[in-house]
Amino acid sequence: MELFYSTDIKKTGITLSGAEADHCARVMRHKEGDTIFVFDGKGGLYNCTITRIVLPKRGEAVVECGIVEKSRGVGERNYSLVMAVCPTKNMDRYEWFVEKATELGVDSIVPIISDHSIRTSVKKERLEALVLSATKQSLKSCLPVVEDAISVTDFLNRDYGEGVLKLMAHCEDGEKKTIRQRIEDHKSHSEGKGLSVVLMIGPEGDFSAREIELALQKGFLPVTLGESRLRVETAAVVSVSEIYFASI
Amino acid sequence: MELFYSTDIKKTGITLSGAEADHCARVMRHKEGDTIFVFDGKGGLYNCTITRIVLPKRGEAVVECGIVEKSRGVGERNYSLVMAVCPTKNMDRYEWFVEKATELGVDSIVPIISDHSIRTSVKKERLEALVLSATKQSLKSCLPVVEDAISVTDFLNRDYGEGVLKLMAHCEDGEKKTIRQRIEDHKSHSEGKGLSVVLMIGPEGDFSAREIELALQKGFLPVTLGESRLRVETAAVVSVSEIYFASI
Repeated sequence: MELFYSTDIKKTGITLSGAEADHCARVMRHKEGDTIFVFDGKGGLYNCTITRIVLPKRGEAVVECGIVEKSRGVGERNYSLVMAVCPTKNMDRYEWFVEKATELGVDSIVPIISDHSIRTSVKKERLEALVLSATKQSLKSCLPVVEDAISVTDFLNRDYGEGVLKLMAHCEDGEKKTIRQRIEDHKSHSEGKGLSVVLMIGPEGDFSAREIELALQKGFLPVTLGESRLRVETAAVVSVSEIYFASI
Repeated sequence: MELFYSTDIKKTGITLSGAEADHCARVMRHKEGDTIFVFDGKGGLYNCTITRIVLPKRGEAVVECGIVEKSRGVGERNYSLVMAVCPTKNMDRYEWFVEKATELGVDSIVPIISDHSIRTSVKKERLEALVLSATKQSLKSCLPVVEDAISVTDFLNRDYGEGVLKLMAHCEDGEKKTIRQRIEDHKSHSEGKGLSVVLMIGPEGDFSAREIELALQKGFLPVTLGESRLRVETAAVVSVSEIYFASI
């Protein structure tokens, strides 16, 4: 099933514009009367009939549709997940993580810049484009958010509210549990509320001692990812995977 | 710690040749008297002192070392794992899986060709080079084997012996359990023997009905990877990850 994305959704109908409309009208060559599926990135999935196509020789297409049926989209989860991951020196690797996190399920991806970070900026628009295409390919109805890059310190100083399971994976010594153990501990104390996780993955040289100390003060629990020496993007993907499987 | 790889290991000493010797002598510019670490891919890790370097203007270098100390290498696991995964249409994706499986821990990677496979061959030497570099980067002492590509049918018809947990991930309906559940069931019946897993991941269009039926006949248990629609390489990596975390 092919999905198009739009936030221009009214009771009277849906409008595709920009790259989505071009893909619909020029690449897939849809016509008036065709059925297409549109998702709004927030859980809504719309079965639509195309009512009008504007296809200028130059400039972007516009596709207007009437809504036949609205349903709750597939791919919904019983947990929310914020992945705060330091950008890798090689951006291809970070992009793999962003794609895989989206396939498995994530609500927000936050590039965090550590004291030890080699890479200190990212191209947010590129990551957003990746997220959109991975969301469509994996037929998910909720579009993860890519936030602006932020320092680890600023990320730690945010207020996450009550009941959020906050985790940091680091390599320094100290008492640690696995992600699954932390989730099980948390569930037994959270009176049946939905699971909400914030997880931090550090840069190639690990978080600094200062950042680890601040994280502990802010209630972030240390987790171990086992004995293997994992690359940043591997650590991030297996963490998303662990949370995913813990919720099956 | 930087690792070099050699199988030319005698009581009298170790010899590096080919690309390993070139990397040691030309790229890293090691000299006689330097300490280097060499692994044999089978669990042995050697602390060595370079005794002789041959560095021709043309042609490959040769590096000879004396063994100072042999130890058991790091990164050993309490389980063995064979990952049989259909090559993906886009080989970058398969290579990503091969790298990640090596970082997490795998003994053998088998490219299997399904009735539904789009890609029916792989460049084995390229995958072996990837495995070697990922093994060094993740400081593992055992080098995973990359086998020749084989049909799913031939793979299913191999004799895996007793006590091996054989799993196939597929998308057809039917009773399935998660990988973790299969491991737990298996452990309760295996009288404390070390865990040995063989896991199959199908191509983009899933295994064929014929292959799934044959797998069941051959004692392969079906596993689910949850509700998300995962790419082949994602399914493969999260499976390796699940087994890894189940053994922590």
